[in-house]
Amino acid sequence: MDQRGSAPVSDEERLARAALTRVSEPGHQDVARLVRSVGVITAWAALRSRDPRVRDSRLAGVALRADVTDPERDLETISREGGRLVCPGDAEWPEALDVLVAADCAPFALWVRGSGSLASLDGRAVAVVGTRAASEYGLYVAGELGAGLADRGWVVVSGGAYGIDGAAHRGCLVAEGATVAVLACGVDVRYPSGHARLFDRIRESGLLVSEHPPGAQPFRTRFLQRNRLIAALGLGTVVVEAGVRSGALSTAAHAARLGRMVMAVPGQVTESGSAGCHRLIRDVAATLVRGIDDVVEAVGRLGADLGPEGPGSPSGSARDGLPAEAARVLDAVPVRRAVGPEQIAVTAGFDPATVLGSLGLLAGLGLVERSGEGWRLGPAAMPSRRAGPRFRPPGAPNGRQAVQSRPAGRQLPFGGSGGAA
Amino acid sequence: MDQRGSAPVSDEERLARAALTRVSEPGHQDVARLVRSVGVITAWAALRSRDPRVRDSRLAGVALRADVTDPERDLETISREGGRLVCPGDAEWPEALDVLVAADCAPFALWVRGSGSLASLDGRAVAVVGTRAASEYGLYVAGELGAGLADRGWVVVSGGAYGIDGAAHRGCLVAEGATVAVLACGVDVRYPSGHARLFDRIRESGLLVSEHPPGAQPFRTRFLQRNRLIAALGLGTVVVEAGVRSGALSTAAHAARLGRMVMAVPGQVTESGSAGCHRLIRDVAATLVRGIDDVVEAVGRLGADLGPEGPGSPSGSARDGLPAEAARVLDAVPVRRAVGPEQIAVTAGFDPATVLGSLGLLAGLGLVERSGEGWRLGPAAMPSRRAGPRFRPPGAPNGRQAVQSRPAGRQLPFGGSGGAA
Repeated sequence: MDQRGSAPVSDEERLARAALTRVSEPGHQDVARLVRSVGVITAWAALRSRDPRVRDSRLAGVALRADVTDPERDLETISREGGRLVCPGDAEWPEALDVLVAADCAPFALWVRGSGSLASLDGRAVAVVGTRAASEYGLYVAGELGAGLADRGWVVVSGGAYGIDGAAHRGCLVAEGATVAVLACGVDVRYPSGHARLFDRIRESGLLVSEHPPGAQPFRTRFLQRNRLIAALGLGTVVVEAGVRSGALSTAAHAARLGRMVMAVPGQVTESGSAGCHRLIRDVAATLVRGIDDVVEAVGRLGADLGPEGPGSPSGSARDGLPAEAARVLDAVPVRRAVGPEQIAVTAGFDPATVLGSLGLLAGLGLVERSGEGWRLGPAAMPSRRAGPRFRPPGAPNGRQAVQSRPAGRQLPFGGSGGAA
Repeated sequence: MDQRGSAPVSDEERLARAALTRVSEPGHQDVARLVRSVGVITAWAALRSRDPRVRDSRLAGVALRADVTDPERDLETISREGGRLVCPGDAEWPEALDVLVAADCAPFALWVRGSGSLASLDGRAVAVVGTRAASEYGLYVAGELGAGLADRGWVVVSGGAYGIDGAAHRGCLVAEGATVAVLACGVDVRYPSGHARLFDRIRESGLLVSEHPPGAQPFRTRFLQRNRLIAALGLGTVVVEAGVRSGALSTAAHAARLGRMVMAVPGQVTESGSAGCHRLIRDVAATLVRGIDDVVEAVGRLGADLGPEGPGSPSGSARDGLPAEAARVLDAVPVRRAVGPEQIAVTAGFDPATVLGSLGLLAGLGLVERSGEGWRLGPAAMPSRRAGPRFRPPGAPNGRQAVQSRPAGRQLPFGGSGGAA
């Protein structure tokens, strides 16, 4: 599904993708099926054509929206606001989202405002999320994590909400880092309104991102779908504080499903705001993190081999620099036919716990992927791609050139071009 | 090594064991080797005989202590105080300590004061431990756990120290439960002195236990050795609050080594008193417990099949009532030759995580045991013993008869005889 390096995205495709972000809600299975079978351009044409196959199907409701969809106007609006539409195939499209393509739930495109390049967060972003009803303890920890990640050159991804999200964004900004707010509404919609000033600051050094077009309102279902983008953009997701019904747990669930690392900060068992974190540690084996060092240790293993973009890392292929045991586990994973971890353990000659740990690491690097109950090689491990697109040399046309020219001293968080919008 | 059902312990052996508890410090490898090769009676005779093989060896220091050791007097003292010496082979000797025999670090005997029967805590005790420098939060959680365990018929084992230990003992007593304090000094020594009244109350409904004779002082090394007894007596150990240098972590380490379940209560990452707990959850995969329900869920699986002594459990053999997956894992474990968990996983047809979980459960029941890097059947699973000594029928001469006659309504925590000492 990797489209970089091929022809640039045509105007026709860009318009179709812009239109699809307005007519269809994320996760609409019928639209996804249509796009899968005929492609975005034909799908958009069918939706607005009053084709009887569309009119008489479950796509009828979507087709009604097509009548009031004007992608040219949306593109003009975002441009006037200094933003842009980033499509798969664009240099700025982040590889991190390829995992959503594989899971068949990728956004048609992303609406973006801000000074960074979306692609430059690949392999160096961590999601920090949590409850809006945060405690003083949770706000403190989130702020410390945001600042600590910024200090170490990581990009902080969160949802722009009150509480933990806001504290993580602010901690990052205070440390002069770059942060990305992934919104459930248009990137020009100031929701929540109390964060209008925060969003302005985020745009100055980071990005506002949404799969919804300008002016789109934050419906409840959009928050849940938005969470998959947050989970996919980070190498890992840290849940700082979350009750058992917090939306942050949906972000963690997406992260786990996508093979991303899930981390949780513990708290007192007498506080309901930590109950979701404790459940993650108990039930889905989330990594208990005590602070920035634990987070960096966890995701650093994943980011260390991602080339110039990886904070403080040397360039190299994904296999280079793998821990010895992970390399041996990788050798034991078949190319096509997925096998269970117990068989991999036998082949690699390790105990199952080591194998499971290594599979998590390798999954984060795209070197293995889950298939049913088993595991097989992932895209980044395929022979034809080992030194391929994921690890571009400096100067390659991928929107990351600026990263190469950053001062030797302090790492600039974003390497992309484009002024604040 | 099971000696129950054989001839009662002879006076000569009882004197020798009493003497060895005074001349030797727990964990003294040379004494252990001597006893292993010639038995307790001959070992004690050799130590006090000025045998040149003893005098010229590293046992010389121990032999010097023999000159001032008078086991008859110690036995008179404990008897005068209403206590007793419990030896391996006595009906009151708890099977829980057999795990120490297997690990070659069993006590020679235990000095006991109190109204309970030590044997009756088999399969129904939980250790609750933690730092002396406890926070209000830790004290609250420890008290709740102590009371909650008592309410559900479990015996609370701890170390009688200030802080978490004391809160756990007290919580249990307030709920009219039975608690066992395992001391690092003689059971007649009031250390710490501020707990003198607490020890009196523990003796009324529970037990004071020590491997040190009357009058023995609490040296530092004795605390660390004492911790192995706490770990062995509980089906699991809960660390409520512990700094990274807390002795409670040594109890947890003993528990892990002995195949007991290790549990830890999380707290705020900003509190050093929870740092040890977080380390246990991160580094040794201790089970994060949020309260009494989690503890009972964890150890209940282990205790549910232990016959009449198991809180609220039906009688039956250790294999009966095993979860289906644990039974299948058990079937995949060889009798003699230990194999790794990955091979067991392949044989049983389960994923490694399930196998490891089941092995922990089976180890707690004595059905499997670790040998080097692998696992093999444990004593409780041996064909000749499957319905054997571990699961005696009602009325068997094992000091547990009283358990059978407890009222149907409230479970009496201790089933043994003997008035408060």
